[in-house]
Amino acid sequence: MKALVFHGPNTIAWEEVPDARLLEPTDAVVRVDTTTICGTDLHILHGDVPAVTDGRVLGHEGVGTIVAVGDGVSSHAVGERVIISCISGCGVCTYCRSQNPSHCLAPEGMSGIGWVLGHLIDGTQAELVRVPFADSSLHRLPPNVPDELAVLLSDILPTGFEIGVRYGQVQPGDTVAVVGAGPVGLAAIATAGLYGAAQIIAIDTDGHRLDVAKRLGATVTVDPSAPEWKAQVLAVAEEGGVDVAIECVGIPQTFTMCTELVRPGGHVANVGVHGTPAELALQDLWIRNITITTGLVNTTTLPMLLRLVAAGKLPVQAFVTHRFDLADIVSAYDTFGRAAQTQALKVLLTR
Amino acid sequence: MKALVFHGPNTIAWEEVPDARLLEPTDAVVRVDTTTICGTDLHILHGDVPAVTDGRVLGHEGVGTIVAVGDGVSSHAVGERVIISCISGCGVCTYCRSQNPSHCLAPEGMSGIGWVLGHLIDGTQAELVRVPFADSSLHRLPPNVPDELAVLLSDILPTGFEIGVRYGQVQPGDTVAVVGAGPVGLAAIATAGLYGAAQIIAIDTDGHRLDVAKRLGATVTVDPSAPEWKAQVLAVAEEGGVDVAIECVGIPQTFTMCTELVRPGGHVANVGVHGTPAELALQDLWIRNITITTGLVNTTTLPMLLRLVAAGKLPVQAFVTHRFDLADIVSAYDTFGRAAQTQALKVLLTR
Repeated sequence: MKALVFHGPNTIAWEEVPDARLLEPTDAVVRVDTTTICGTDLHILHGDVPAVTDGRVLGHEGVGTIVAVGDGVSSHAVGERVIISCISGCGVCTYCRSQNPSHCLAPEGMSGIGWVLGHLIDGTQAELVRVPFADSSLHRLPPNVPDELAVLLSDILPTGFEIGVRYGQVQPGDTVAVVGAGPVGLAAIATAGLYGAAQIIAIDTDGHRLDVAKRLGATVTVDPSAPEWKAQVLAVAEEGGVDVAIECVGIPQTFTMCTELVRPGGHVANVGVHGTPAELALQDLWIRNITITTGLVNTTTLPMLLRLVAAGKLPVQAFVTHRFDLADIVSAYDTFGRAAQTQALKVLLTR
Repeated sequence: MKALVFHGPNTIAWEEVPDARLLEPTDAVVRVDTTTICGTDLHILHGDVPAVTDGRVLGHEGVGTIVAVGDGVSSHAVGERVIISCISGCGVCTYCRSQNPSHCLAPEGMSGIGWVLGHLIDGTQAELVRVPFADSSLHRLPPNVPDELAVLLSDILPTGFEIGVRYGQVQPGDTVAVVGAGPVGLAAIATAGLYGAAQIIAIDTDGHRLDVAKRLGATVTVDPSAPEWKAQVLAVAEEGGVDVAIECVGIPQTFTMCTELVRPGGHVANVGVHGTPAELALQDLWIRNITITTGLVNTTTLPMLLRLVAAGKLPVQAFVTHRFDLADIVSAYDTFGRAAQTQALKVLLTR
């Protein structure tokens, strides 16, 4: 089969590799019909994720058709259209049973991390992919949900919703600030209304992303390069700050923006993937009764979000900006990697 | 009346001041029968709390007898024995009505901070104290609860319980690590069992405090100056870390200890009063699905804890180590300030 193979920092190639095949009774092999590129894949490409080694097939998002299942798979069958979760949880360890498969203890890859596809084992940017723990990790796709919307459910929609909106404990009437309107920030914006946010403030320097944010539900957009940006946010928020600030960038400055924007008693939900420490201003924050959360998605809300997408209740079409043939994935990485110029959000790859 | 007056860093005196009197219809004046000294008072004494200015009467904990009430006070009367909450909430602002009087917006002192006694207005280390918002801030004391236990309810027991145990979301069966076994850490240890903690690990370098921790409910004690201290903690915890780590010191090192001890999906509850920032290792923590909380006590659980103390369900006698006459409070500050030598925990002052 052909696959997108990582060969060390800044080196990827679409090349021939051995076909994905069943290794464990709980595996399925899925023919990849649609996949996409995540910001995390760019981090890997740039060498920021040392666990990803030379020869690894990248990708942890995808929609496809099952071509083989192991003897231990009971709830899926060959021929089904499925969404592949970016998290491969065994379903039986302590973490999986407490709804935290992101920290699955099964020895599939690295014990304690449920994200293995395109990380610790070969991933979805390929013609075929082996999916471990198929019963927990695959989700049957209704015929009325197109691939290009379904693929958003592998990672970004659940990430923005679970780690941003739910960990941030968005409540009806809340003012929510989302710092960073890339795909995951937009996913938080698109789903904050599910818990009744009254005001959703999108904060980004990219005018195109702010335009998309408005289409997805942002009520206010703020450019943080403007000197009065903080006053603009606080003018929307009552009582000295926002109820929930969601960090979707992954650098110290944007994390600190969130801790400065939140009101006493409010919530900061960190979604961004960070590479360096941040300074936490405990001398100011110890007294402010704030909650800070972090997290890798569990995708436990994937079925719920799928029902909403199937019912047309989430305006997710706006995420998809570019389409490529799977064989042209190296070009797609280039387009996605230059998002500031190309205005790329989600770049779809289809067979 | 006589009172303990702050005259700038490292200068306090027991001296004559004008009698406390009613200023607002919602005030009460309370004769202080028992008060105590908080670690925060030592911070003030050392000049770390610039909002406290020359001439301020210190103290935010106390039990006493009401000697006057304003026309707007409806639920308390002259002659009642009461506990004075360290938080003076108006009861009607947004924060008070959402059970967060620690951020009361009333202009009694500084808008947005409900801790005003001994901070922004004169406090309880005096013969008389004016208590604002008496209906919300005073709690009638049953005859069977002695002053020396009741005074623990002004601040430290609710602080350890609300900001440590409740914000830390302790659940039945949890392993809880409490870093710092001073009075507030001991309060967290003494109340962690209320939510069914299975293991309570007290971490402190002071052997006396660890002994007290055991009497208050700690199941394991660890001295973090021992090289194997972290292994000792992790040997008690399952699945890679403790469920809840409660920070009760207030320095960057102990905060970082907590973020390093907690398991994926666990909780770090910061109770300590910090004077400097801490480094937050987001490059490791972004993926760990942890929750970090901070906070000033609300004392909304004071009535509940009072019922438990009255019923003899909390072993709180162990907190009280020293007793002084109120007039000898300067000596009491000295004893409390040299706790490492004097083994002081709570130092009681009675009229």
